[in-house]
Parts: sequence; structure tokens; C-alpha cells
Amino acid sequence: MSGEEAAAPQQPDQTEERTDDPTGEPLSGVPKSSEISPPAEEPAEALEAHPGEALDAPVEDEFTYRALVLTGYGGYDKVKVQVKRGKPHPKSGEVLVRVKACGLNFADLLGRQGLYELLPAPPVTPGMECSGVIEALGEEVTGRQVGDRVLVLGRHSLWQEVVAVPASQTFLMPESMSFEEAAAMPINYLTAYMMLFEMANLRAGQSILVHMAAGGVGIAVTQLCQTLEGVTVFGTASASKHETISQGGVTHPIDYRTRDYAEEIRKISPTGLDVVLDPLGGSDTHKAFSLLKPMGTLIVFGAANCVTGQKKNLLAMAKTWYNQFTINTLRLMHVNKAVCGFHLGYLEDDELITKTMNVLLELYVQGKIKPRIDSTYHFEQVGDAMRRMHERNNIGKVILLPEPKMEKEGENSEEKASPESGETKAKGEEEEVKKGETDQEEVKREEN
Amino acid sequence: MSGEEAAAPQQPDQTEERTDDPTGEPLSGVPKSSEISPPAEEPAEALEAHPGEALDAPVEDEFTYRALVLTGYGGYDKVKVQVKRGKPHPKSGEVLVRVKACGLNFADLLGRQGLYELLPAPPVTPGMECSGVIEALGEEVTGRQVGDRVLVLGRHSLWQEVVAVPASQTFLMPESMSFEEAAAMPINYLTAYMMLFEMANLRAGQSILVHMAAGGVGIAVTQLCQTLEGVTVFGTASASKHETISQGGVTHPIDYRTRDYAEEIRKISPTGLDVVLDPLGGSDTHKAFSLLKPMGTLIVFGAANCVTGQKKNLLAMAKTWYNQFTINTLRLMHVNKAVCGFHLGYLEDDELITKTMNVLLELYVQGKIKPRIDSTYHFEQVGDAMRRMHERNNIGKVILLPEPKMEKEGENSEEKASPESGETKAKGEEEEVKKGETDQEEVKREEN
Repeated sequence: MSGEEAAAPQQPDQTEERTDDPTGEPLSGVPKSSEISPPAEEPAEALEAHPGEALDAPVEDEFTYRALVLTGYGGYDKVKVQVKRGKPHPKSGEVLVRVKACGLNFADLLGRQGLYELLPAPPVTPGMECSGVIEALGEEVTGRQVGDRVLVLGRHSLWQEVVAVPASQTFLMPESMSFEEAAAMPINYLTAYMMLFEMANLRAGQSILVHMAAGGVGIAVTQLCQTLEGVTVFGTASASKHETISQGGVTHPIDYRTRDYAEEIRKISPTGLDVVLDPLGGSDTHKAFSLLKPMGTLIVFGAANCVTGQKKNLLAMAKTWYNQFTINTLRLMHVNKAVCGFHLGYLEDDELITKTMNVLLELYVQGKIKPRIDSTYHFEQVGDAMRRMHERNNIGKVILLPEPKMEKEGENSEEKASPESGETKAKGEEEEVKKGETDQEEVKREEN
Repeated sequence: MSGEEAAAPQQPDQTEERTDDPTGEPLSGVPKSSEISPPAEEPAEALEAHPGEALDAPVEDEFTYRALVLTGYGGYDKVKVQVKRGKPHPKSGEVLVRVKACGLNFADLLGRQGLYELLPAPPVTPGMECSGVIEALGEEVTGRQVGDRVLVLGRHSLWQEVVAVPASQTFLMPESMSFEEAAAMPINYLTAYMMLFEMANLRAGQSILVHMAAGGVGIAVTQLCQTLEGVTVFGTASASKHETISQGGVTHPIDYRTRDYAEEIRKISPTGLDVVLDPLGGSDTHKAFSLLKPMGTLIVFGAANCVTGQKKNLLAMAKTWYNQFTINTLRLMHVNKAVCGFHLGYLEDDELITKTMNVLLELYVQGKIKPRIDSTYHFEQVGDAMRRMHERNNIGKVILLPEPKMEKEGENSEEKASPESGETKAKGEEEEVKKGETDQEEVKREEN
């Protein structure tokens, strides 16, 4: 991604003064999107969705589409469905994509709390990955056709029914890949692959610790470790997920809620680990560093410990910051260790991202990796989707669907969820979320 | 190396009360080595140098051998030749090596100044690498025979005519390898190889900066980079060495004395470098970090900036420490970079060291690497040898020879040096050491 500008799809041109947000909350206080999208875009033009047709149709202001909008920092209720008017127009080098599925990432939870600086200030449409079908081409686009199924990687603003994005940020989906899988792929698998093979140089026979092993990155890491012979994977997750992650390739699942994971690892591997991936930050980074064997590599790729409850928690942030791992090079020399930071959002190497994404798609075709979909939620259920991830109830990826939820007879759309797209939404959520665990302080990892 | 105990050869049992130090300095104030070698070794036994003979000969106290001894921290004159009495006895698992050549390393200069904590307090025999011929075997030694030509890696105490060392720290020399080459190999090439391929994961087509490109590690790094396709090597060295290092494979030699190397590199490679190897420390580490491209790796493997004059320089140390590079993981995430420390002396992974040494010996046999010998000095000339390295006049490795210098007719041994072992000692030293450059402040790199 060559910069914020290129990566962010167009902001919508007009916002309807109505909402189909199922919570029925009024949009008072939310500015029109025309106020929030400087520099002003040219007026949206009509896009006839006929393959190959030139983009010279008259302005079609009547076109509307649904988008999720972060209306301010705070809890789950800050992300609302809004209806935008005016079809996005693919500029030169861009394609218009009809979005079928979107990925939810931990960074989106941070963004909602105002803790993710790469997300512009509200009101803004979040969303860094999606999949869909190309509906129109801008000028000078090569290698893409109307009707192509693609997955899309961006910086934000992909959670909407249609998006105009640079063609270079789209990747053709393998035939056997579902839209949900495609939306689950870019962020988690790029992150996992680059950490393992670009930074850590993981090799056959080595050992690795991955936290949140049942999360999107955790599962991607576990699958990619299986592409090498004899990698020992230590993975932290709550006990209820151990069977699943074991089947996925985690050699030693550890319940971080009831045990000190560092002690457990030292019992099994007293000499330490070759690689530790740390998405937590704070005091866990210190533990991670101490678990490395000489010549080992620590990669910090998040600060999940900053997030506790729904809203920004200054105490948790202060603790995470206070415990932030700082090291000088003399100490590193004395212990022969490597400390790395990774954040896909800050990586602006288009060539490397494209190369890696193509490697991943090839691994998918070979059957070596396959995104695991935890659950799917319609846009109007985004709060539930975020809660599921926030409370660590997911095993695999949480997916958002732009299409409106169809109410079935006798069902109340606000209380029940139906299986979608072949995946069961929030499968078993009720059983897993035990009383007390959803409390703000309980959700936080015990050891912090 | 599994620890200090295992790696340090026996201390000599007795010190002769005389010296053949050509400077003729009395050894007043230097304690007998029997005072300096706790725990007391068993009395040295005689070692008949007949292959296969059992080590049950009577004690041969009359056996004497020469060793270099650091008698106290300070200038070049603190390292003296002493004659030890009593042949070292190879314990179980050890071999006795008749030493033919020893390597001089930057750490030896630090050690002399009291800046290398892995060297025990004086009086002590320095020396971390040598080559020679196995003269006797301890019990339970397999895979080695009397008469084998070996190179030896240790923590210290190898600068003596005979040493008893664990057989596991010896490696059979290829037939075509000279003793000087063998003594030049372990420290520099292990350091270079592990940094490039274990830590940095250098790959074809990448770019790298190596400081002191004409030094032992610099030349090893340059040669190892040639084993990959299309690696761009930036190397700093004074202008007089550019032709030589260019021929060796440095793509862009940079005279750090007359130019800002960081500016020069940015002109040629504006996006930065994949790998920077930093043996300097202090403010140069900051420059190194800023020169990295995203996903780039910095490896700090020394603090040469601490060393200015012959003796410990508190100001230089303070500056280096004050400027010591410290980083927190949040910043690393924002820039997607890796920071590593490497120091062979602190690495206790015998298996990795052995594996890597064998890879290096195979690369030597294939003709892909070949240590470059700058100059050879007899033990009694160790001060000159250290001065040559200290003043950065060497191109390649400085070697020490245990055998006494043979005086030729009409020559004064203290003022002139003769070519030895097929290598010219301190070739062209007089021309290269320009007036003023040997001054303590001038020797220091200008940019610090």
C-alpha cells in the first residue's frame, strides 16, 4: 500500500437522513458525510452494472448503498449502519467492487475506542479487508474484468456494500474460495506469513509461542507452521478451545486463564523457544523475551492488553504503557536475541505485500491453508460481532455481511441469529460466554 | 561452547621466572601463574608425542612452552611473552594441540583495556581461536587422532604453544587450508555467518551495510554475501582500502573519514537497506536504524566506538554509552523493523556453533570463502599486531605465531619484521599509517 490516499476508498458523497440501524437510534449529532470527506469528491456518477460499458452514464443520485460508520469513539453502539446515496466512481486505476463479505479485526476494536491512529477521526467507515465481485472498471485498469471475484486489502472504509479501490489492492480469488474465506484472508494471513518467514525466519524443527491461538492470526500462524516439518507450536487459549486448536496443529495448548503460560512452557521446553509472537504488549512482552532461547526472535505485533472493556480504559492503557518493553542493544548482544515489531498497517511496501498475498493464495489452492470462519454477522449486527471478538469467544474469523438480514417468520431479528452463508453465526456463543467472563475486568487476561 | 569451564583451556601450571620477551622488560609485579589459576590443576604430566601412546608417562616438569599473558589492563605493553613449565594435560574428552597460528580479534583489544568481561582478570592468557596439530588425546576422545590438523575455538587462553582443549571445540582442517587461514576462520566467519543467515535471513537481491569492511568480520561478511545472487554490499573503510574490498565484493565502498556514510547510502539507495551490521555502537547505531528499510534488520555486534586510544578512554565510553541505542516495541511496530544483538562469546549453543562451523569449512572447500591474511606477527610482536588492528591498518586478519622470531644476520629484531609463513608481516604498514592518524583522537571514527 503506497499511502493513506491510495488505500482509502472514496468516502460516500451523500448520507441519507435516515438509517436502517436495527437499534433505531437517531443519527443526531452525526454530521453528513459531505462534511467529513475533504477534499470534496467530484459528484458521484452513475455506474451501470453492465460489464464493459463505458462510465459515461448520467449521475445516478438515486443509487443508495449501506455502509457501517463509526460515529464517535466508545462502545459497540458507536458503529452504525447508514445508507449512502450516490454510487462510488472508480477513478483511473480503480475498480468498483460489490462487497459480499468483510473481515473484522482486532484493530477495528481498537479503532472504535480511539486507539488506532491509522483510522481517521469519526465519522468514518472502518474495514481493512473484504471480498466481492468487480462491478465496473476505472480507466487504465489491466488484469481485472467486470465479474471477477476478488479479495481486497485496504487501510479503512471497506465496510460498505460497494467500494471503489485501486485495482492493485485487489487479488483474484481461487475458484474454490468462498467470499467469507476471502474476507478472512488478507490481514491475518499476511501478518502471520510476514512475521514467520520474513522477520523470524522460522525453520523446520523450531519452536514457537502464539498467543490467542484460536484467533484469526493465531489460526493462520498455526496453519503456516504446518508447512514446515516438525515445528512445535505452543498456543494460549481458554480451555474450551483446546480441542479445536489441537486439531488445527497446536502442539501444546495452554489455558492462560488458569495457568502461568511461561511456567508451563519452561516445563516442556526448558531451553526456551525460537520464536515468540506477542500481540499483547505490556508485561507479556517481558515474559516473551525471557522465554526466547539464544538466537531466538520476539515479534511484537499488538498491544491487546490496552483493551479491556468496551470503552477506552485509561488504567489498562497506563499499565500496558508502563510495562512497555524497552531494550538497549548492549543487553541484546549479551543474550543474542532479536526483537522485532510488526504492523501490517504501517507497512508501505506494495511489492512485498503483493508477492506475499500471491504466495498465500497459492498455499490455499494447494490445500495447505484455509481460513477458519468462526461466525458471520450482518452489518446491523456489528455490535454483536465486535462483542464476540472482544470477549474472545471466537475460534477463527468473525465476518460481516453487507446484505441486510432477512427476517424469518416468527423470529425477532434483534434477538436471534440465523446461520448464514453456510456458516453458523456465533456458534455456541451462549454456552461459551460464561457468567462473569463478560465483565470488563474479567475479560482482561488474568496475568496482566 | 557449553560454558566458561569447558571452553577455557587449562592454565599453565608454573611460570618460569624468566622471559624471552624481546623488549627485555622484567616481569616484576607479575604473579606466578600458580597463583592465578584457581582451582589448582593436577600437576602436569609428561606427554610423549608419539601417536597412540598411553598418557601414563611420568610428570615432565622440564617441559616449557611460550604463552602470551595479559599482565594487567592498559596499553600494548601489558601483553607479555612468558615461559610456562609443565605440559598441559588433556583431560577426558580433551586433546592437546601444538599451536601453529592464533587469531587476533577486536575483543582482544577490548580485553587488554579491561573492557571485555568474558576475559578473566589478569594475569590471564587471551586468545579465542587458533590452529595446530593434535599431539595427544585424553581419554574418551573419538573422531580425532594424533597428527590431525585442527582449528580451535575457545573463550580465552589459546595464545600459547600448546593447549589442552575439549575435542568438541576442534574442527578438522581441510587439506588445502593453511594454519594461518585456519586461525583466521572461527570467530570472524561464525560471527558473519550467524548474523547473515541465522539472524538477518539475508536473501538474494537484498542490500547490506557492513562497517570496517576491510576487517576480519567485514571480509567474511563480504565473501558470504557473494554466496547469494545480487546482494548489494555497502562497506565503510578508509580510501586506501577501497580497491581491495571492491575486488572482494563490496559494491559501494565508502570512505567514512571524509564523507557521511549515511548520506552516501541514501543517495544510492533512497528506500534504505535490508540489513545493517553495526560493530560500532553509540551514535552509529542510531544511524544504522534510520538506514533500514521497512522489514529491515539491524544487528549490533560490538561497541568499537568505546575504543579510541591504547588505554581505556572514559570519555569515549561515556559517549558511546550515552548514545546507546534503546528502543521500545511500540516504535518497532510503527516502523516494522528488527533489532538484534549478536556476540559469539555469549552464545552457548554448541550444536549450532558446530553445525555452522562445518558449513563454513564446506564453503571453504568449495572455494566460496577464503580468509584473507593481512599480516603475521610472532608472539613477542603482539604489541605491533594489536597496534595494526587498533589503528585500522589491516585488510583482513592479523595472525599471531607462537614460534619465536628467528633473527637474521644484520637485522635488529626489535625494529624490523620479516615475512613469515608465506605472508608478509604488516605489509606496507609504514606507508599506510600516516602522520597524525595514529593519534588517539584521530584514530577514532570522525563521525563520533
